[in-house]
Amino acid sequence: MSKEFDKLREQVCQANLDLVAHGLVTLTWGNVSGLSADGLHFAIKPSGVPYDDMEPDQMVVVSVESGQVVEGELRPSSDTPTHRLLYASFTGVGGIVHTHSPKATAFAQARREIPCLGTTHADHFHGPVPVTRPLSEREVEDGYEAHTGDVIVERFAELDPVTMPGVLVAGHAPFAWGQDAAEAVKNAVALEAVANMALDALLIDPDARVLEPYVLDKHYTRKHGKDAYYGQDKS
Amino acid sequence: MSKEFDKLREQVCQANLDLVAHGLVTLTWGNVSGLSADGLHFAIKPSGVPYDDMEPDQMVVVSVESGQVVEGELRPSSDTPTHRLLYASFTGVGGIVHTHSPKATAFAQARREIPCLGTTHADHFHGPVPVTRPLSEREVEDGYEAHTGDVIVERFAELDPVTMPGVLVAGHAPFAWGQDAAEAVKNAVALEAVANMALDALLIDPDARVLEPYVLDKHYTRKHGKDAYYGQDKS
Amino acid sequence: MSKEFDKLREQVCQANLDLVAHGLVTLTWGNVSGLSADGLHFAIKPSGVPYDDMEPDQMVVVSVESGQVVEGELRPSSDTPTHRLLYASFTGVGGIVHTHSPKATAFAQARREIPCLGTTHADHFHGPVPVTRPLSEREVEDGYEAHTGDVIVERFAELDPVTMPGVLVAGHAPFAWGQDAAEAVKNAVALEAVANMALDALLIDPDARVLEPYVLDKHYTRKHGKDAYYGQDKS
Amino acid sequence: MSKEFDKLREQVCQANLDLVAHGLVTLTWGNVSGLSADGLHFAIKPSGVPYDDMEPDQMVVVSVESGQVVEGELRPSSDTPTHRLLYASFTGVGGIVHTHSPKATAFAQARREIPCLGTTHADHFHGPVPVTRPLSEREVEDGYEAHTGDVIVERFAELDPVTMPGVLVAGHAPFAWGQDAAEAVKNAVALEAVANMALDALLIDPDARVLEPYVLDKHYTRKHGKDAYYGQDKS
Repeated sequence: MSKEFDKLREQVCQANLDLVAHGLVTLTWGNVSGLSADGLHFAIKPSGVPYDDMEPDQMVVVSVESGQVVEGELRPSSDTPTHRLLYASFTGVGGIVHTHSPKATAFAQARREIPCLGTTHADHFHGPVPVTRPLSEREVEDGYEAHTGDVIVERFAELDPVTMPGVLVAGHAPFAWGQDAAEAVKNAVALEAVANMALDALLIDPDARVLEPYVLDKHYTRKHGKDAYYGQDKS
Repeated sequence: MSKEFDKLREQVCQANLDLVAHGLVTLTWGNVSGLSADGLHFAIKPSGVPYDDMEPDQMVVVSVESGQVVEGELRPSSDTPTHRLLYASFTGVGGIVHTHSPKATAFAQARREIPCLGTTHADHFHGPVPVTRPLSEREVEDGYEAHTGDVIVERFAELDPVTMPGVLVAGHAPFAWGQDAAEAVKNAVALEAVANMALDALLIDPDARVLEPYVLDKHYTRKHGKDAYYGQDKS
Repeated sequence: MSKEFDKLREQVCQANLDLVAHGLVTLTWGNVSGLSADGLHFAIKPSGVPYDDMEPDQMVVVSVESGQVVEGELRPSSDTPTHRLLYASFTGVGGIVHTHSPKATAFAQARREIPCLGTTHADHFHGPVPVTRPLSEREVEDGYEAHTGDVIVERFAELDPVTMPGVLVAGHAPFAWGQDAAEAVKNAVALEAVANMALDALLIDPDARVLEPYVLDKHYTRKHGKDAYYGQDKS
Repeated sequence: MSKEFDKLREQVCQANLDLVAHGLVTLTWGNVSGLSADGLHFAIKPSGVPYDDMEPDQMVVVSVESGQVVEGELRPSSDTPTHRLLYASFTGVGGIVHTHSPKATAFAQARREIPCLGTTHADHFHGPVPVTRPLSEREVEDGYEAHTGDVIVERFAELDPVTMPGVLVAGHAPFAWGQDAAEAVKNAVALEAVANMALDALLIDPDARVLEPYVLDKHYTRKHGKDAYYGQDKS
């Protein structure tokens, strides 16, 4: 095992454990991956391994180009082809999270986008969180996980993955992403919280009004981009 | 107390404690049992005993054939006749869990099957989770717990308990099972999660579409059976 | 402080702490009391005291007959007159719990009885959990807490508090009780669980069918009374 | 750093940590501030700092009059102008909490006031918890956070912030307040609990009746004001 990916393995392992700490994991469902600085490889959780005694050395390193395992003794997450396709297609994405977090998954199962009903949503997602189309029978039978990536990329034809760091796969569950694995986890946490509050708001008023576009823009831009003034100055 | 059942008692005690750790237990509700390797006996939680200081030696060993207690000083769970009937009737079942976990119980109380709305469901249950018919007055009055087993077995006349490892007893609560006690607990956890997300999806869209059969098959078979490719190679 | 009530104070203090451990307490809301063996006094939580450092010596001992504080330096719970009235009126009640546990309180706020939709309910409450009538303006203005006890007692004119160990005060919250403080806490836990599952069952099917009377009777009597066979033999 | 604000910083830091302990915080969302005894300054949480290792010295001290940072090396919460405006406008308010707690936020997103359906509500809020009007585009673009304070103050034209210690900002989330930071946290906890139970009561009965005014008055005045008799005598 080379030292080249040591730091990446640690970050990805920690991000997987953070996902548990944030309460987004049931049994062994869910996985986090992170991209190397040169964008050529990513480390990802092994498939079906318990979180209790997860170690950085168990993370599997995969080539973005070939999808082949480069380092690691365990089988990578069965969702690896989806992660690979997103890294290959989306610029600015350095970490990806897949969960079956309950509220976001409920929207995915209802095949409804999450409408932007409030500023919590606007702080993280610049518009409604989209849903993919269902996969066709052919797409499911051959190369299912890669085709899951395809329908996500297809859904983002006119969306920017940097300002919309998440998606619901119809009948399946959410994917979220970010600059790195840690930010992807934060966006997965935000996605679940946003889905939770949207569902409750719709129960209170099924015709709840979508947030005014100028509030959406304000909240998104005060946290993201060159005019952001939320958080501490990083310079 | 013979050593023959020591390991089984330990496994069953641990599975009962895992049920608590997974948040499926309120007060002393719920019980787990596990079958011996030769299929002749099962160990089960004693009735109404607190989980706080549960010990393997408290597990009660019962004969599958006679239903009589073979080893153990405490009275076995009042649901023992139901467990016994399922072991006697279902091939491939080596562990059984009964809970009153809230979301699955809500479906049981509404006497509605849990529709398969997403891949989380398909990963564990190969179709909608069925509901039994209600027991008749006669069935309740005489041999209630055994008749609870009967209506479950009756409901599975055309279902395979191996691919459908759970059921809702109408007006009562869920039972789940698996190859052994540990797998039965995992299926009980999955059943609760699946019920939770189905309820929320139905609140978002009461006409939520059932998962396409080819996705159901794909998800089920990628985790189960000879072509499974989820998790680590066990060979 | 006499030693006579030491054990009662300990039991009541522990029951108050158990209420917190079971997740039924927000801030300082809720209180538990317990009756002395001779039925002449009860110990109750002091009013508005944090649970973090609660000690048995803080419990306040009150006379059932006069309602006067007999021992204790703190002011008793503001709900003390309600507890007193229930002890004075109900035979077989040795412990009382008042909570604002969320799901039972939601039913109390909606002023709807909790229908018996399943066996979890039948295991603890022999029929739908009743709601009181609202208090009149006069009852609220003068002797509010005692009149809260009055409307509960009025509601039980044709109900047995031993087989129906709980009630919802309209627009307020639940009270639960039992043989002693510990059993009252268990019934408060069961009441919250039952309310939770009834609400969800009604969301799945607003016309959910009430449990067959013969199942209600069976489940209640297998846990309670002379023919009970749930739990361990206490003889 | 002067010693003048040491105690205030400690109280405000502790109140921010209490907000986490009460489960009202997701990621770094939410902030608490507290006013100095002379009413001239307030200490507030820094912007976007993790709660894990929060220290009193990180709290930022701001002038109520100028809104300028007086002490502290970090950037104050981006919501600081809102806090400042409330301190400048509301008499009797010595602590302010902003959260995105899920149930209160759901009402804010649905732009519905929280109706007073029960005594838990009446114990803390003397009437329905109001919602502000939405901000106009101009108000959002220039001085957004101060204008958030403006619409709150505007909403309270005929309300007393002492008897109504909370508000929902339309499409955003709740603010709560109190005599000091600790009481503001308690009111934020109560607001979330009250929203939670109101939502469930409305699911049980969409036409749930509002609490009788005389019960509202009784519960509010038994906990607050000169005739209060809840809790321990503070004299």
